[in-house]
Order: sequence, then structure tokens, then C-alpha cells
Amino acid sequence: MLNYRTIIRIFSLLLITEGIFMWFSIPVSLIFGEADAWVFLLSGAIVSLTGVVMYMPVRKSPLQVNRRDGYIIVTGGWLLFSLCGTIPFLLTGSIPGITDAFFETMSGFTTTGASILNDIEDLSHGVLFWRSLIQWLGGMGIILLTLLLLPFLGIGGMQLFTAEVPSPTPDKLHPHVKDTAARLWLIYLFLTVGETLLLWAGEMGLYDAVCHSLTTMATGGFSTKQASIAYWSSPYIQYVVTLFMFLAGTNFTLTYFAMHGQFRKVWQNEEFKWYLGFIGVFSLIITLGLFFTNTGDFEPAFRKAVFQVVSILTTTGFATADYLKWTPWMIVLIFMLMFFGGSAGSTGGGPKIMRIVIMLKNSTQELKRMIHPNAVIPVRLNKESVGESIVTNVLAFIVFYGIITFISVAVLSLLGTDFNTSLGAVAATLGNIGPGIGQVGPALNYADLHAAGKWFLSFLMLVGRLELFTVLVLFSPLFWKR
Amino acid sequence: MLNYRTIIRIFSLLLITEGIFMWFSIPVSLIFGEADAWVFLLSGAIVSLTGVVMYMPVRKSPLQVNRRDGYIIVTGGWLLFSLCGTIPFLLTGSIPGITDAFFETMSGFTTTGASILNDIEDLSHGVLFWRSLIQWLGGMGIILLTLLLLPFLGIGGMQLFTAEVPSPTPDKLHPHVKDTAARLWLIYLFLTVGETLLLWAGEMGLYDAVCHSLTTMATGGFSTKQASIAYWSSPYIQYVVTLFMFLAGTNFTLTYFAMHGQFRKVWQNEEFKWYLGFIGVFSLIITLGLFFTNTGDFEPAFRKAVFQVVSILTTTGFATADYLKWTPWMIVLIFMLMFFGGSAGSTGGGPKIMRIVIMLKNSTQELKRMIHPNAVIPVRLNKESVGESIVTNVLAFIVFYGIITFISVAVLSLLGTDFNTSLGAVAATLGNIGPGIGQVGPALNYADLHAAGKWFLSFLMLVGRLELFTVLVLFSPLFWKR
Repeated sequence: MLNYRTIIRIFSLLLITEGIFMWFSIPVSLIFGEADAWVFLLSGAIVSLTGVVMYMPVRKSPLQVNRRDGYIIVTGGWLLFSLCGTIPFLLTGSIPGITDAFFETMSGFTTTGASILNDIEDLSHGVLFWRSLIQWLGGMGIILLTLLLLPFLGIGGMQLFTAEVPSPTPDKLHPHVKDTAARLWLIYLFLTVGETLLLWAGEMGLYDAVCHSLTTMATGGFSTKQASIAYWSSPYIQYVVTLFMFLAGTNFTLTYFAMHGQFRKVWQNEEFKWYLGFIGVFSLIITLGLFFTNTGDFEPAFRKAVFQVVSILTTTGFATADYLKWTPWMIVLIFMLMFFGGSAGSTGGGPKIMRIVIMLKNSTQELKRMIHPNAVIPVRLNKESVGESIVTNVLAFIVFYGIITFISVAVLSLLGTDFNTSLGAVAATLGNIGPGIGQVGPALNYADLHAAGKWFLSFLMLVGRLELFTVLVLFSPLFWKR
Repeated sequence: MLNYRTIIRIFSLLLITEGIFMWFSIPVSLIFGEADAWVFLLSGAIVSLTGVVMYMPVRKSPLQVNRRDGYIIVTGGWLLFSLCGTIPFLLTGSIPGITDAFFETMSGFTTTGASILNDIEDLSHGVLFWRSLIQWLGGMGIILLTLLLLPFLGIGGMQLFTAEVPSPTPDKLHPHVKDTAARLWLIYLFLTVGETLLLWAGEMGLYDAVCHSLTTMATGGFSTKQASIAYWSSPYIQYVVTLFMFLAGTNFTLTYFAMHGQFRKVWQNEEFKWYLGFIGVFSLIITLGLFFTNTGDFEPAFRKAVFQVVSILTTTGFATADYLKWTPWMIVLIFMLMFFGGSAGSTGGGPKIMRIVIMLKNSTQELKRMIHPNAVIPVRLNKESVGESIVTNVLAFIVFYGIITFISVAVLSLLGTDFNTSLGAVAATLGNIGPGIGQVGPALNYADLHAAGKWFLSFLMLVGRLELFTVLVLFSPLFWKR
């Protein structure tokens, strides 16, 4: 039985929160002397008051939820945030149609960064601040989700991500988890402020520094400039952003350990080693490629390569270069990177390094099983063997990822999108990256896609952001059976 | 310990067999009054005599093999056949370079059908007959392999394909399996003769009828005409070829049952239902697509659609239409079909319907496991539950298939091939299909690829044909450890 009243109670709390955050744009508008401060006041009021009205009749419902309520709350919560988040875009007229506004907002809350805006610089500071803030809220949502809800829902693989997360305890939250969530949220805030200061110390103004820090730490990738980070040619700015994209894609518990001097725990973490390894190998190859084919100058080649590799792998999606103008094999490497994703326990999207590692390890183990069919050959991670049901879950996740990609490419091409654009758009939205390949590359955007395609891709962003299963179970008839 | 002497004994028997088959081209050359009869005599003699010389010192070795010998024999056998099979092409000068000759021969023995020939009709009848014959031999090899060796090697999933195959008995062959192998081989021969007669009864000459039947039943796809089956505009010919491609992609045990009137067993087979279902759905969609966009005439649209769907899905690769000229979304559907493959127990390549079905079923079961995490929810096939290790094996297979595809596309693009061609060439060789997308579409061929790319793709054909694991275990250090 679904606890409808509890679900409504949580939804209304979410609305009240979102409305309050809308008011954060009011001071921005006032500082820049823009006329749309009242829009944010009004939008925030509409959303929070709706929340309050919804809250009243259910204010005494218990906050106890069961597993199925959890799925509804997560998927429904993201949908609700995205729907209501469109109001400032619509009321200011910055994005006139609901299709585009919903696409942009969903792209924000899912930390994707895919945009339909052709002239970002034309928008007011208040609106662009809201656009950055929704990514930051989305990132925060993911941290809370990873820690509080996913282990509780038993979304396999995620439990693994740190010793800090106790094994899932059904139907109530472990108090320890709440502490961890609070700590990780503080790190998220701390890193956001840190990046802001470092960018501000460089060639970036305070406003742009804040906006980009909000979207970096969420691995979101919305920029206040049409040219993205390429707008700032300063190597300092680009390296700072690279560093913070890297941190945003790192398991936040590891950052916590590092801040407390426990570097051993960081270096012993296998997922982190692979994360570093993937970034290192891809950056090296592309640096050499760019060095020999394009620039002939080492530092810019290295900077561009490492920026784009980190940006795509962590699913941030900022750009300092139009990688579609690189030699084709480099584009293929960048496209491959779209199927990695950040670390588990980071704000990064995609399949995640953890799953890629388990998948690769299981593959080599399967070969060993072929040679010694009667031996028990488990997958090991951080020196412990990974349970068979988690391996099956990870493989099922990867397979689902592939199936969804395949079917989605077919759907997009049915809507008249060419093959490469379909492939790029699906990879970049399902993986919550932003820029893809084809007509949705880093120098272009999603404005020209079919309206149905935009709705479909918005759905993919949600599916990808919520680890597939969270959304897909809702389509299982079993879910709705008593 | 590998039994080297036994392995050499088996290899020499294989060479003797191959040499004898080369002589089959002598009468063809003589009938058509071509000068290269002596080339086949000489080639056959070289290959058989090498076999005889190799055989002598090891003629008393036992034919008992262990699991690891099995892997060496299968992969080595296919390599040896392909290497020696080039001799007639090289000696006649039909294909001058070893790269091209090896590519074409490997494409033959793996029943792929990818070609580097620009003017097929310029080749002599004897050479084209040899080219068709190697596909037929490759198909026969796969039947023997599926029945005799794969279950014995424990290549998971394959054991499932029929109740006729007893569970793998280590280190000796079940006599029952030999009977089955003989029966299936007879069906293979019977269907080949049947198709020959039906094609000959139509607009095709006897020689072309024989050649095309040899390559249809192997799901090979080599044609004696540059235009492939499109050369014959007759609907009768095209429908006959469609029917036999369908049969070649069907589990041969089911054909056996059908021939003995046991239709119940056929209809109850779940893989067969899905096989029919996939063909039906894709054919229907593409028929409608062609009807409304291209022809405006129903029968030709239906004929083209069903021909290409069956040709690609069964991994045959014949063409009656250049599908790359169709509307982009139809190309995407055809490309998707490249990742299905024939039924288990057929001569078809690719991942196979059986694995696709287990993968899809496990995905929906995984969603159910999310809802009831404590329940045991197995995958069921033909009303029996599939063991967890088989499911893991199938998922690992699919994942390997994806990883290999990804890496191979990167390798090909590093060699300067464009993205779409790389994607098409990899899908079409790993899946043993033949024509791909991009510059290796059905109206084009593999002639212009980089030489290193041709060797690489030859390797992919082998890997795909031998169910990945058979070849990949050889790269596992554990395999070579005592």
C-alpha cells in the first residue's frame, strides 16, 4: 500500500523548499538593477504557497515510508522540482515555451547541462543565477539521495561505495547515515565556496565565479556564457575548473578523509585509482593527439585534453574546446568517455566508475571461470569479494544502459534526427553530461530538436540521474500490484 | 599441460580435409573450361601433403583432449583453415596480397561475408566456388563446434539450446551427441540441396544456385555477383533466399523436429517464438516505412524489408537493397538488428537470440528484485529456471560484446576510419554479418580500409564466430599457467 498522505506531505515540503530557493535570485536581480526581481518573488510565492496549502491537510501524517513510497518520492520529487522550476523562466519570458523551459529545468535539476538557449548572455543575471542554482540543488539532491535513500531502497552497487554507509536497514534510517550526509553536504558547500574564491581571485567576476562554482560542484555544466569556459582564455581559470570538476566527480567521503589527513584511505580506494587511471590514460592519449595534429605547443594541448576528458568523464559538460573539430579518433575517445561517469558517492552521473570496474573485473573473472569451471571465482573490490547479487545488479544496470541507449537512438531517429546526433544526444542526456556529438556538440545546443524529442530526452535525463532502476521500477506491473 | 602431439594430430587431420575440399573446385574449373584447374590441384596437394607430413610423427597420439587443448584446437583450427585457404586466391592471382586474401578467407570460414573484392564477376568460376565452399565448411564447422565442443568446454548458454544436448560430461563425448551432430549435419546438407534445386527451378543457373545455397545455409552471404541477390530481380528467387536464410538462422534441432512432424516442440520453443517475433516486428515497421517513403507499392516494400531484416538478423548479409539509401531511422533499425544474431544451434553469428532473450528477461526480473529484494526471482526459459551462473555468463558475454565493440571502434578510428564506418565495420565483422554501415555498406566493401584495419577486423570475425570466450581465454594469463 502506498502511503499517499506521507508522499504528499514530503512533496509539499519539497515545494516549500524550492519556492524559498527561488527568492535567492531576488538580491541578484536587485544588485544588477534588473526589473525581474518581482518575478522571483512571485514565482517563489506561488510555489511555496502551493506547498503550504498541500501541507495543511496531511501535516500529521507520519514521515515513515516504505520501499515503494521511496521510489515514488524520488522520481516524483525530481519531476515536481523540474515542473515548478520552469516558472521563473516562463514568467520572465526568458524561455517562452513549456517544452524548452521543462527541458532546461530538468537538465538543471538532473545536473545534465544540456541547453536549448541560443543566446545565454541575453538572459538577466537573476535568471542565469536561478539556472545555476537548480544544478547545485540537483547535486545536493543526489548526495542526499545516494546516502539516505538509495541504500535504503537497495539500489545495488551503491551500498558498496564507502565503508561509511552501513548496510541497508529496511524501513528506518541509520542515524550514522544522517551524520555522514551532513558532513558530505558541508564538503559540497565548502568546495563550492572554495572554487568561487579561487575563480574570483583569477580573471572571473564574483557573479560568474559563483554561478560556475554552483554548476561545477554539481557536475552540471551550465555556464553564464554561450562559449562556456572557453570564454575565459586564462589557463589559471581553466585549471581551477578542471580541479573542481575532478573533485566533484570524486567520492565525497574520500575528500572528507583527505581533509582529515587520512590519505591512506584515499590511496587504498580502488575506485579512485581507476578514476585517476582512466583520466590519466585518456588525457595522455588526447594530449599527444592534439600536440601532433593541432597545436604543436604542449601546454595548451595538455590543458585542452585534460579539461575535456575530466569534463566529459565526470559528466560536467563544460567546454574549452569544440572537440568535434578534433581528429575523428579523438572524437571517438571522447564519445567513449560519455559511458564512464563519475565515482559512486559523487555528484557525477553516467554508469559510474564503480560499475565499470565491477563490470571489467567480472569479465576477466568470467574468463577464469571458463578455464576452471568448478572453482568459485568472485569479483574482488578493495580486497573484499563482491556478492553475486551485486554483480548481477551491476551487469543488469550496464545492460539496461545499453538497451535504453539503443531504443532511444531509434526513437530520436524516428523523430527525424540524424544518427550521430541521436547517438550524441542520448549518450549526453542519459549520462547527464550535456554536450554530445553531431548537432548537439559543445559548440551547439538542443534548440533545434523536435519538441517530442526534447520531452523524450528530458525523460532520459531523469532516468539516468536516478540510476535507471529508481524510475524503471515504476513501469513494472508488479510495482502497482497489491 | 597441453597435449601438443594430440593438438598437432588434429590440426594435420584438418589440413588434409581442407586440401581435399580444394580439389572440389577442379571439376568446376574444367566444366567452365577455365585454365586454373591446376591451381586447385596444386593448392590441395600442398595443403593435404603438409597435413600428411605433420600427421606422421604424431599418428599414435591419443585423440583424448582436455579443456585447454579444446580452446587451442578451436581457435587454432579456424586460423589454420583461414591461412591455408588463401592459397588458391594467391596462386590464381585473384586476390594478390596476403592481407586481402586472409581477410577474404577468414570472412569465409567465419561465415561473415565481408569482402574486399571490387569486381567479383571478374573471378573464375573455380575461385568463386572455393569462396562459397569455405563458407559452407565454416558453417559445418560451427554445427560440429556447437554440438561437440562448446558444451564440453562449458561455454555457458549453449548447453541450453536444446534438450538433445546432454549436460556437459567432462573429458569425454557423449555418444548421443555424435548422433545429434550427424543428424544436424544431414539437415544442413539436405537444406543446401533443397535450396539449390529451388533456386535452379527459378531464374538462377545451376552454378549460381549451388554457390548461393552454400553461402545461405552457412549464414555467410558471399555472392557470385557484385550486386548480391539484387542481381536477380525475380521475387521468387528473393523469397526462396529469404526462406532459407530464415532456416539457416533457426535452431537446427527444431528443423529436425519439424521434419519429423513434431511441430509442438517447435511452437513451444521460446527462443523460436522470439526469433519469429523480432523478425515480424522489424519487418513490419520497415515495410511500412518503405511503403510510405519509397516505393508506394506494398509487395516490393514488404519483400525488401523482410529480406534485409532476415539477412541482417541471421547474420547472412545478402542484399537486395542498399539500406543506407533508406530513411535514417530505418538505417538505425537495421544497425540495431546487427546486435541480435541467429538462434543458438544455428549457423548464425552475433550474440544470438537466446542470449538476447535471457538478457531481456533478466532485466525485467531485476526490476522485480528491486521491489521484492528478499524474494528469489529466477529467469525462466521454456518454463524452466535458468541457473544463476548461466545468467552471469550471458550478461558477461553481452558486456564483452559491448566492450570489444567500443575498443574496436576506437582502434579503427585511430587507423583513420571515420566513426560511422568504424561502427559499421566492427558490428558487421564481430557479428559475422558482412555489410555494415558507412563506407562498408551493402553497396560497398572493405577494400579501401587500412591494411592493419583488415587484420584487426579478421581477428574480430574470429572472436565473434567462436563465441568470444573461446578466443579470449587464450589471452588470460591463467590459461598458460601450469
